[in-house]
Amino acid sequence: MENNTIFVGSKPVMNYVLAVVTQFNEGSDSVLLRARGKAISRAVDAAEIVRNRFVPESDVTDIRISTEEIENYNNEKTNVSIIEILIEKSDDSF
Amino acid sequence: MENNTIFVGSKPVMNYVLAVVTQFNEGSDSVLLRARGKAISRAVDAAEIVRNRFVPESDVTDIRISTEEIENYNNEKTNVSIIEILIEKSDDSF
Repeated sequence: MENNTIFVGSKPVMNYVLAVVTQFNEGSDSVLLRARGKAISRAVDAAEIVRNRFVPESDVTDIRISTEEIENYNNEKTNVSIIEILIEKSDDSF
Repeated sequence: MENNTIFVGSKPVMNYVLAVVTQFNEGSDSVLLRARGKAISRAVDAAEIVRNRFVPESDVTDIRISTEEIENYNNEKTNVSIIEILIEKSDDSF
């Protein structure tokens, strides 16, 4: 699972879509998109674009949210939200 | 269910946290947070703050993502991602 994790950051959404499609094309059955803070909406966009436009035989099978404590540049602790979106290819694509 | 839906937009996150807490205090067993586009990360923040800080006997029991077609100010159709986060109070709070 860990090998199939794609960390979604501040690049254009199509970068992450392409990363997911590449994972599937290389034979992965599942890809996990992981994002935090403001990148969360980009991870949702990427999952929706993959599922609707590029890999129609895939689907979102699990979504989890959580909180991580991070240290900002002033050495202050602050909380940031995390999302993990699991996209799986269904068997009936064969 | 519809009556317990809170639409998360561009206001400060604590506005939405307060709206959820108020719903629970008025006797609701479940609240649905709904957001689209860039507000998605704010909905996740609100759910996490409610669960971790304000209503510890509640938990996120379902998360769904989808896509809606909207018309922008140029009358062009564009897609926007949606998230729906269901927060439920567990029975063992009694």
